Amino acid sequence: MNVRSETVDILVDGQRIEGTLTASPATDGPGVLFVHGWGANRDHYIEEAGALAGIGCVCLTFNLRGHAETEALHETVTREDNMRDVMAAYDALARIRGCGRAFIGVVGSSYGAYLGALLIYMRPLRFLALHAPALYMDHDWELPKRKLHVNPDFAAYRRLALRAEENRALGACAQFLGDALVVESEHDEVIPHPAVANYISALANAHSLTYRMIAGADHSLSRPQWESEYTQLLVNWMSEITKERACADTPS
Amino acid sequence: MNVRSETVDILVDGQRIEGTLTASPATDGPGVLFVHGWGANRDHYIEEAGALAGIGCVCLTFNLRGHAETEALHETVTREDNMRDVMAAYDALARIRGCGRAFIGVVGSSYGAYLGALLIYMRPLRFLALHAPALYMDHDWELPKRKLHVNPDFAAYRRLALRAEENRALGACAQFLGDALVVESEHDEVIPHPAVANYISALANAHSLTYRMIAGADHSLSRPQWESEYTQLLVNWMSEITKERACADTPS
Repeated sequence: MNVRSETVDILVDGQRIEGTLTASPATDGPGVLFVHGWGANRDHYIEEAGALAGIGCVCLTFNLRGHAETEALHETVTREDNMRDVMAAYDALARIRGCGRAFIGVVGSSYGAYLGALLIYMRPLRFLALHAPALYMDHDWELPKRKLHVNPDFAAYRRLALRAEENRALGACAQFLGDALVVESEHDEVIPHPAVANYISALANAHSLTYRMIAGADHSLSRPQWESEYTQLLVNWMSEITKERACADTPS
Repeated sequence: MNVRSETVDILVDGQRIEGTLTASPATDGPGVLFVHGWGANRDHYIEEAGALAGIGCVCLTFNLRGHAETEALHETVTREDNMRDVMAAYDALARIRGCGRAFIGVVGSSYGAYLGALLIYMRPLRFLALHAPALYMDHDWELPKRKLHVNPDFAAYRRLALRAEENRALGACAQFLGDALVVESEHDEVIPHPAVANYISALANAHSLTYRMIAGADHSLSRPQWESEYTQLLVNWMSEITKERACADTPS
């Protein structure tokens, strides 16, 4: 499939953040919004977006405020700001010609997975792929994101077994009725297993749930083989859920 | 693959229950113990056992006491009795030449899925596939199984959101570290979704978790297309987990 990339400007709160649209010109496939983790940027997903575009998806990567061209905001940007970025990017994706508007979902990592889960409350999502999903306490929503880690209970919070009603991101997952993928890095030095387990438990009402572990991998999938394995998981999963939906949409 | 079936006698508490071994004579593949639901019998799994034997598994189906040749015990058999049947059948499977003893798991439906989950406490299981898993209250363990449904709270219990520590089958699932498959029938008239959701949530520590729904299906998968879809899910899942294990077992 002939895949092309182009830069897209996304406006949010009077600021401009950059996105990259990767798709085949001929497609009207699923729209995939990639939400990167804290400290990364849209380039993190070049391989994944290319691979999903190769099977017909319309892929949008973008830079959360506080990163890349808005790096100056790194110390002050809040979850509220970044949530607005994610909504603006979603809306930009939904407006793109050729994007299957009725079939849009999120692929997110770490902080981006957390924001992607919260997007369930705000926008219709048909699918949701979370890699190494981060968890944050609900309170101090408008505190700069960088300050959240200062809380002395922060690390312990990620080791708690939480019910869906105890955290807004988990509560969103419990409402999710689409197809869900959760991927854990076996040797994740940032997100401990209990945090991932909370997401898995909360997703018990999803239409389907696929949980896989990448053996030996670290948090950022720093080795090419780990990223390739993640990309392959995404491609296999997307192929399965789009095939099933295509069958379900056929009158019988 | 050349697949054959033969009858196996399983002794438990001085009684004889019948099993059927389905496998290729040349295999040393995964051992699969099929545990049927209440009111069914080993013949329920002819298609599934044949299909898994076709990809190299050593499959054992058997009749729980209270069914088939021990139908006379239908009104008096207890969960304790049937749990002992499952353990005896597991041990029979583990003794069979050609069975990959280090790689044994359970495929169970409804009451059989409940018993299969409890087997986690008793025997090493590498994989666990639950279709329409039933839930029962922990107490009255030695009451005849048929009497459990008389409890006026029985139906409501299956609609509760339960934590793993509140039910012994869910508690077993929370300990499970192997590969798990949960399959729900979309229009299950016996097992409501909250019961299935409890199992999904409890399995958050599994090495992998795959949850799928069979569209339109009833509890017993009474139409051939629904059973075929279930068989295909089992075959795909088993192929994936055995392939991954084979890679993991290869020195790198």
